[in-house]
Amino acid sequence: MIIFGIDPGSEKTGYGVVEKRSRSKLVCLAYGCIITPRTKSRAERLLFLEKELSSLLSHTKPDVGAVESLFFFKNLKTVMPVSEARGIALFALAKHKIPVYEFSPLQIKMAIAGHGRAEKGQVQRMVKEILCLEKIPKPDDAADGLAAAITCSLVLRSLPQA
Amino acid sequence: MIIFGIDPGSEKTGYGVVEKRSRSKLVCLAYGCIITPRTKSRAERLLFLEKELSSLLSHTKPDVGAVESLFFFKNLKTVMPVSEARGIALFALAKHKIPVYEFSPLQIKMAIAGHGRAEKGQVQRMVKEILCLEKIPKPDDAADGLAAAITCSLVLRSLPQA
Repeated sequence: MIIFGIDPGSEKTGYGVVEKRSRSKLVCLAYGCIITPRTKSRAERLLFLEKELSSLLSHTKPDVGAVESLFFFKNLKTVMPVSEARGIALFALAKHKIPVYEFSPLQIKMAIAGHGRAEKGQVQRMVKEILCLEKIPKPDDAADGLAAAITCSLVLRSLPQA
Repeated sequence: MIIFGIDPGSEKTGYGVVEKRSRSKLVCLAYGCIITPRTKSRAERLLFLEKELSSLLSHTKPDVGAVESLFFFKNLKTVMPVSEARGIALFALAKHKIPVYEFSPLQIKMAIAGHGRAEKGQVQRMVKEILCLEKIPKPDDAADGLAAAITCSLVLRSLPQA
């Protein structure tokens, strides 16, 4: 089962693709970050984001999508542009008929690091360990995309596989 | 010049299409409300919204899009789903290569009713007057979509026409 994780952002949207090959084996297929051009308008940046995501979904053919949700607002000014990008992420997954699971930052920290107060660095180190990567995935947004995908794989483990 | 106004919402997205035929003549071409099915997931509802908007844009062929922005938050819970719908509205306009203008509720009230404290009913009566309609457009979301389009026509009046 291939899981496509997305951490939407107003400027940078991180993604991470993992494949669950057995009950305990999780392999990293790809990760990266979509940076929308600052020179373009808000609408054109959302169009750019959708095209990039759509192309990645066509190539990686995931069975499931995992999107990080905003649980509380660190910064009220960013809630709106981040939610706009989140809308595009959800839309792109639905367009490709991929079922979507949403996870709050708290759920992701709990699943990956075992407790909700884990720091960013700790979650990133765990992402590296779980996927047996040589180094911590960069940028942070990509690591967050992978963290969402790993969380989804752990949650789906408790559900019967189709 | 044809202007497509959009008032995005998490459940209902209002739209209104007006044509500016001369410096003072503004004609209502269409208005309505897209209601996304409650039985579907958030992602599928956004997909539904985009398909409907895209179809309306193909039929009405507007030169310009006018989207209502959220200026302040009446209800924090609705900021995220409304912003997701707004992201879809901006995306749909960009996909059709239609330039987008954004207007805050305050700007719309000022443009239509002449002052920023105008009540909803007052703005709606002005929409009816300006477009010489027989009755106030219903539902409210459709009237808000028309109000965004009218505001855009009034602002563009002060700009040189292409």
